[in-house]
Amino acid sequence: MKPSIPKGTRDFLPEQVNKRNYIFNTIEGVFKLYGYVPIETPAMESIETLTGKYGDEGDKLIFKILNSGDFLKNARIRKDVLKDVTANNFSKMDLIVGDEYPLQFLVRDNEVLPYITEKALRYDLTVPFARFVVQHQNDLTFPFKRYQIQPVWRADRPQKGRYREFYQCDVDVIGSNSLLNEVELIQIIDEVFTALGVSDFKISINHRKILAGLAESLSIGSNFSDLVTALDKWDKIGEEGVCKELDSKGVHRDGIVGIMKFAKASSLSDIDEMIQNSEGKQGIQEVDKILNDLEKLGVKSCSFNASLARGLSYYTGTIIEVTANEASGSICAGGRYDDLTGIFGMKDISGVGVSFGADRIYDLMEERNLFPADANVSTELMFANFGEAEASFCFGLLKEVRAAGINAELYPDAAKMKKQFSYADAKHIPLVAMVGADEMAKNEVTLKNMDSGEQRTVKSSELIKELKG
Amino acid sequence: MKPSIPKGTRDFLPEQVNKRNYIFNTIEGVFKLYGYVPIETPAMESIETLTGKYGDEGDKLIFKILNSGDFLKNARIRKDVLKDVTANNFSKMDLIVGDEYPLQFLVRDNEVLPYITEKALRYDLTVPFARFVVQHQNDLTFPFKRYQIQPVWRADRPQKGRYREFYQCDVDVIGSNSLLNEVELIQIIDEVFTALGVSDFKISINHRKILAGLAESLSIGSNFSDLVTALDKWDKIGEEGVCKELDSKGVHRDGIVGIMKFAKASSLSDIDEMIQNSEGKQGIQEVDKILNDLEKLGVKSCSFNASLARGLSYYTGTIIEVTANEASGSICAGGRYDDLTGIFGMKDISGVGVSFGADRIYDLMEERNLFPADANVSTELMFANFGEAEASFCFGLLKEVRAAGINAELYPDAAKMKKQFSYADAKHIPLVAMVGADEMAKNEVTLKNMDSGEQRTVKSSELIKELKG
Repeated sequence: MKPSIPKGTRDFLPEQVNKRNYIFNTIEGVFKLYGYVPIETPAMESIETLTGKYGDEGDKLIFKILNSGDFLKNARIRKDVLKDVTANNFSKMDLIVGDEYPLQFLVRDNEVLPYITEKALRYDLTVPFARFVVQHQNDLTFPFKRYQIQPVWRADRPQKGRYREFYQCDVDVIGSNSLLNEVELIQIIDEVFTALGVSDFKISINHRKILAGLAESLSIGSNFSDLVTALDKWDKIGEEGVCKELDSKGVHRDGIVGIMKFAKASSLSDIDEMIQNSEGKQGIQEVDKILNDLEKLGVKSCSFNASLARGLSYYTGTIIEVTANEASGSICAGGRYDDLTGIFGMKDISGVGVSFGADRIYDLMEERNLFPADANVSTELMFANFGEAEASFCFGLLKEVRAAGINAELYPDAAKMKKQFSYADAKHIPLVAMVGADEMAKNEVTLKNMDSGEQRTVKSSELIKELKG
Repeated sequence: MKPSIPKGTRDFLPEQVNKRNYIFNTIEGVFKLYGYVPIETPAMESIETLTGKYGDEGDKLIFKILNSGDFLKNARIRKDVLKDVTANNFSKMDLIVGDEYPLQFLVRDNEVLPYITEKALRYDLTVPFARFVVQHQNDLTFPFKRYQIQPVWRADRPQKGRYREFYQCDVDVIGSNSLLNEVELIQIIDEVFTALGVSDFKISINHRKILAGLAESLSIGSNFSDLVTALDKWDKIGEEGVCKELDSKGVHRDGIVGIMKFAKASSLSDIDEMIQNSEGKQGIQEVDKILNDLEKLGVKSCSFNASLARGLSYYTGTIIEVTANEASGSICAGGRYDDLTGIFGMKDISGVGVSFGADRIYDLMEERNLFPADANVSTELMFANFGEAEASFCFGLLKEVRAAGINAELYPDAAKMKKQFSYADAKHIPLVAMVGADEMAKNEVTLKNMDSGEQRTVKSSELIKELKG
């Protein structure tokens, strides 16, 4: 059997893990600097927690887990299903699978046995977070500022840059209406991408209330979600495509003309004239306040973008999106949602958050060669192995070197020097220490610089000083 | 709907994540210090990669993933199954589930449709590592020293201290027969538990060749795996239980007497007399060499334990187990396996590794209060919010403080002071900065120590010095 992994998933080699960790550590460092604390949720959630939260398309992309061995025991009978099924007179242990039933289930001797699946893999970090907040509300302090860096799984068709397992890095504040949270999140975005060296990133913001106000002004309030969906595709299908889509949804000509004028507006003041209703005005004021605060803070990467819409339906306030390369889509996005925890029974708690797409950031940084050289340093010093006695002699030196915080290893076999040097080379180890009979007698170490090939001999007692210098 | 998570899984609150990360970071830091590099593998593996590797019991505990939406397309027909099924004349779209078939599959109009599951969740890190090594052999440098810290999933019956999702921290060297690898791994174990403050940990070692030699000496070679399995239960069922089990497996009385004498031996030299064959002698020499090297290195926590057996079948050389509290089982374990990659077609590659059980270590450290106070520091300084103007005034200070690497936040709403202080308290924030109209006018900051209640006022320009001091 030739070993392989499921399509859309990936193995990560050491260099890739180190580079990915460089991204995660940078992001996490900034989150902490701003007072956010980490949580983790299980990879598996109950199916009921996830279904119905991501739209019909999303539901289909949730990976479901088969109940384990004992799923024939402890039957849960759903009577409505039972009636349907018994009418068909199944008499064997069969499992009915079909569009007519919401979940698969077992039938044996006219008895409905438990669903074969009750658990599913996390599809994003937002819904599990909402579930977490409601479940642990008595153990949390609000406003609750949390971050979460974990993988999610989606049964999307795999393609370049789209995987079935990928990491999300989410940061959210829940339980505060203050716009200072939006300001802070945008500062965080600015700081993360500056730290990562992505020089040309652009943060765009807009506001769902501005879009709702626009719809009201144009008397197309009932087409609000069509407006959001169409605008969200602007980068993919262009102006003409958006117009066509709005037309197909029954938006009248004046409405479409108004939307186009709006979408091309380049500043908040342009918009201000177009929208007179109170909802729209509130959105405009909020964006204005956020941009003013950012100016005071010296954050220059953020600007208003009238055509930004963000597809997800749960946003109700500010929406945020970051791009660095228009072709490759957003590398970070988010917004304010007024009632995400409501679906789990905790009403009227406003939250705002953004999610960093680690995979897209990785691809972008790799393409542009942005990883610092030391993102992938592993071993700093390798002791060559000249035989049992020499290896033993190195034990003390190794201990000292490691105690000084220097990553070091002893080649485990007394192999040919050529083999040992190739090993050091392949592992990008910059220095090899050689301690043979001569060096042992004189209490010295010969150090070979693997880059230049240069060798020098130092007293054992000076080794740490030499390495640190 | 009351939100909940699947049984056997856990949410982690910020304090728990911080403490768990303290363990992971300590372990990872030591791994790196010894020149090990990280890899990661996907949560999902092909079912064929996992099944048959963990014994019949293990196979039942593997979580399988339902194929996603399109599993009715691209049917794969297994003819042997088809014959069985058509004999039963299923005529509807049914899914046969039962012990008689190795995997579930669909039948419609006498046609067998694809298996409903082809992927499963990782059960441990060892088998995916073996698969990884074979798959990427041309991109790796041997000996390959890797570590891997990732969750695994098992459909075990949940109980205290046993979860369905838990982390393993594995460290292995593959492609070297040298005993220096065993020595190094034991050093790593010693260093990790010393760093974590688990003062009474004990590292036990034994050797599969010694056990095989014993079986040969006692002429019970055909009962070797019964011997391993029985000895492995010593801590659970005691001497009497082990004797009974050996008896039930057909081990003769002399054999049992010999095994008991062996298991109670307290030193290698005791054993040396009992075992004369070459395989046993080799095991004894290897353990002796390892213990000698450890003595030279000053590692005092490791000793020979004749009754140690380790249940897993793939070990062929040294076996290692760490306990800190006999009642709670092992907190780290491993050994040498001579041909793990053979199952994936890469023969005769020896490896040795150990796995740290993060959850057991966590429970133990929590029980003994071993986490350092700063394992859970989040925000170090909170600015109270007195209103819009005051909050704006704090922007510059916040920026300075964060630039100095101090985790800081501004309370997002101008809430009552009492509420703001409770928030700081609940979040264990040690210092609150108050900047009201007075302080703004004088360019000062009043700092409140949340522990002592003490307040002092400092010049804004002195703030960083004050915080660092």
